[in-house]
Amino acid sequence: MNKFNYRLVSRVMGSLMLIESIVLLVICLIPLIYGENDAYYFLKTSGICLVFAGLALIISRNPSSNIGKREGSVIVTFTWIIFTLFGLLPFWLSGSIPSFTDAFFETMSGFTTTGSSILNNIEELSHGMLFWRSLTHWIGGLGIIVISLAILPVFGVSGTQLFAAETTGPTKDKIHPKINETAKRLFAIYIALTISETVLLKLGGMNWFDALCHSFATIATGGFSTKQASIGYWDSGYIQYIITLFMILSGINFSLYYFGLKNKWQKIRENEELRYYLIVLFTFAIIVSWSLVDFSKVQSFQPLEKAWRDALFTVTSLMTTTGFVTADYMFWKPLTWVILLIVMLTGASAGSTSGGIKMIRVVISAKAIYYEFKRLIHPNAVFPVRYSKHLVREDIVTRVLAFTLLYLIVAAFGILILAISGMGFLESIGGLITCLGGVGPGLGLVGPAGNFSYIPDFSKWFLSFIMLIGRLELFTVLLLFTPTFWKN
Amino acid sequence: MNKFNYRLVSRVMGSLMLIESIVLLVICLIPLIYGENDAYYFLKTSGICLVFAGLALIISRNPSSNIGKREGSVIVTFTWIIFTLFGLLPFWLSGSIPSFTDAFFETMSGFTTTGSSILNNIEELSHGMLFWRSLTHWIGGLGIIVISLAILPVFGVSGTQLFAAETTGPTKDKIHPKINETAKRLFAIYIALTISETVLLKLGGMNWFDALCHSFATIATGGFSTKQASIGYWDSGYIQYIITLFMILSGINFSLYYFGLKNKWQKIRENEELRYYLIVLFTFAIIVSWSLVDFSKVQSFQPLEKAWRDALFTVTSLMTTTGFVTADYMFWKPLTWVILLIVMLTGASAGSTSGGIKMIRVVISAKAIYYEFKRLIHPNAVFPVRYSKHLVREDIVTRVLAFTLLYLIVAAFGILILAISGMGFLESIGGLITCLGGVGPGLGLVGPAGNFSYIPDFSKWFLSFIMLIGRLELFTVLLLFTPTFWKN
Repeated sequence: MNKFNYRLVSRVMGSLMLIESIVLLVICLIPLIYGENDAYYFLKTSGICLVFAGLALIISRNPSSNIGKREGSVIVTFTWIIFTLFGLLPFWLSGSIPSFTDAFFETMSGFTTTGSSILNNIEELSHGMLFWRSLTHWIGGLGIIVISLAILPVFGVSGTQLFAAETTGPTKDKIHPKINETAKRLFAIYIALTISETVLLKLGGMNWFDALCHSFATIATGGFSTKQASIGYWDSGYIQYIITLFMILSGINFSLYYFGLKNKWQKIRENEELRYYLIVLFTFAIIVSWSLVDFSKVQSFQPLEKAWRDALFTVTSLMTTTGFVTADYMFWKPLTWVILLIVMLTGASAGSTSGGIKMIRVVISAKAIYYEFKRLIHPNAVFPVRYSKHLVREDIVTRVLAFTLLYLIVAAFGILILAISGMGFLESIGGLITCLGGVGPGLGLVGPAGNFSYIPDFSKWFLSFIMLIGRLELFTVLLLFTPTFWKN
Repeated sequence: MNKFNYRLVSRVMGSLMLIESIVLLVICLIPLIYGENDAYYFLKTSGICLVFAGLALIISRNPSSNIGKREGSVIVTFTWIIFTLFGLLPFWLSGSIPSFTDAFFETMSGFTTTGSSILNNIEELSHGMLFWRSLTHWIGGLGIIVISLAILPVFGVSGTQLFAAETTGPTKDKIHPKINETAKRLFAIYIALTISETVLLKLGGMNWFDALCHSFATIATGGFSTKQASIGYWDSGYIQYIITLFMILSGINFSLYYFGLKNKWQKIRENEELRYYLIVLFTFAIIVSWSLVDFSKVQSFQPLEKAWRDALFTVTSLMTTTGFVTADYMFWKPLTWVILLIVMLTGASAGSTSGGIKMIRVVISAKAIYYEFKRLIHPNAVFPVRYSKHLVREDIVTRVLAFTLLYLIVAAFGILILAISGMGFLESIGGLITCLGGVGPGLGLVGPAGNFSYIPDFSKWFLSFIMLIGRLELFTVLLLFTPTFWKN
């Protein structure tokens, strides 16, 4: 194996820090616009970020261009950690979030597009802080889209993503110059969705600030709101349905938009992930809404519409791993909690900003399991797994099964560690699954009406780590902890 | 495919009913010994059973000896259902369990060696009923051992068992006459373990009746006790440690006893399943016992011993899927519940009477997942999974991963259905996992101090079905519900 290419890693990190520094500088405009006095903290953070970016770029001149899976894993993992370390500074330095642990948790929750919060009173934050908080989602979501659909298919860093690339990704050929072009198109789609939602929310009566912040959080399937009551603050069917629509759109593989633009409708129709994603989403939404209605008391259409809206919103929000809320589902029947936990585990589509296992893996796992039944009856026949009319290689099936199982094992042991750390049973289950999937709200005290402020510091650091490994699909980060990685 | 061999199926079922009829006839002795007046119900059931056995044998004269996987699945599944249907009659006819649903649940819980009960006052049952109740465990456990270690390796009915046979089973060659010989040896080991425990419990102060009934329940990893307080009734360290020991022994693959008798110690030392089973069991017992002790208040050795005894007993009982209890763990910290749920899912060894996923599958799944990490770094290298120094074929690895995942998916949807049926969140999770694994007590109201009497009738039928599919390792029963099975 080649020597680890520290210079190239340092060079990439330096460039990314430079970008963060510039973004933070631009944010200084927000306090200036709203006449608030905390522009200084963004400026200071931008400066600190610039210094480190400069150092990283200076020590890494003329790197060799050799990049392997190990470099890839380190770059991706440390990008999220370093962005979080700088990103928390405005919150922490300004005293908006006085505890370093809390600031780290909140910022990691932002960049991983999770949306779990430690804030007890979101509205007391300044416009600048709220804007930066929502923007961390948007940056994290963009990062994931570009990494999973433009960079990984070329480098093949994450094995599981390779597969998505082979079946649905826009790049089939593995030529480096393609990265830029693909990334640009994805960026355009990402921006187009964000602007469309912002305009539609403004038309519904939100101000531009809230509309933009919520669009950042929706397209990134993040979930930070500018209001303590989340989307429940706007008791407007229009706004809630618009956000539901954009959450659903954000849970679709971005490659499909690319195909749509190229008029390749056939590719979209054949896409099994999209089909099952929508089937599962609407099936569960119907079951939940049905459980919310007491039919013996229904006199008009209005309570039915409200139940359907809340059910659809909640299932969509948790399945796309956004995490906005309009109702406190802890008052709903336990069956809803089970449904919500299941959709939090599955997540929406690969190649979107959503987290969780992803429907493509769920579908392939389900097929692989079903074919085992066929093999019992016809032991000598060969039943290759098909997906969207393509054959799936045997080793890819094994990889998908291994991923899905690893996800559930990490969930089980994560719940164990949270319980050991002193959290309750509901809180450990809900908190772990929501952070691993990048959702936001959990169950019990960390449910939709609560937050993560009261949990022990250890649990906060552990959940920050869980958000990171969930966002980067387990293998990327956990690889760094295996002996194999360190053997030369 | 061959025509379904109804005659052979009917013949086998008839012979098995004949055996049940004879067993029920022998049980009439118990009421006679204890001067109780319910021998009549056993006699009547025995008669009914005999009539059906006769009918089945008459309509199935001269069957062809063709037997395939479809016949195998039907025979195994219906053996458990028919044994339960006849087995419940003494309870139901005598009014000991007035509800048919309850009687079915209790008897299925017996034959599947689960041990979940709907009885609110166990001690009010007669000696005959209690003996029959415990004996259902012992018969069910014996059935599983013989099927999984003597019959399946020859017929290859259950794919997952084939694998166990290939690595640890006593029969490597697939010759029919071997079945009898292997079955006889397993039967001898089974009886030897039962007698040893009975004698040791008698020496500890139990009467012969209780000693025998508890030995039936231990060796079968069942969990029915003759006392409402289960093993907590005997506040004796000796009795509790003896039962712990025999629960551990019953969770070991019975092939290993066979190897032990043949002085093949090498085979036992190399057995990875045994090693990991004991490591996991003692690790979790240590964590649980540590969580039970308030070290600031400990003044003597006695509370430490009690904590260790309760923790070891409880972890052993739930991991071997026995389900005896000495303490109400619902008063313990939530972290213990998580540990107990995890060991209920894993279970003990394949080829034992224990339920759950089985350690062999857990170990192979874990290795397969770890090798995916290696493949990320070395994409072109081949990393075959090794188990007990043998290579595991790629398709077997896929099958193991598929089984483990299917188990967790069945658990998730089972919990959903229980929640829909109106059970609480804790009860749905605990009740499903305990019945699927064949354990006994769950969490909350169906926890160690409660029972399953209050749950809705639908939930009782559903959990009876869950016990059956869990006991027969999912594929055997679920196969009957696939279109593939019915296609000719």
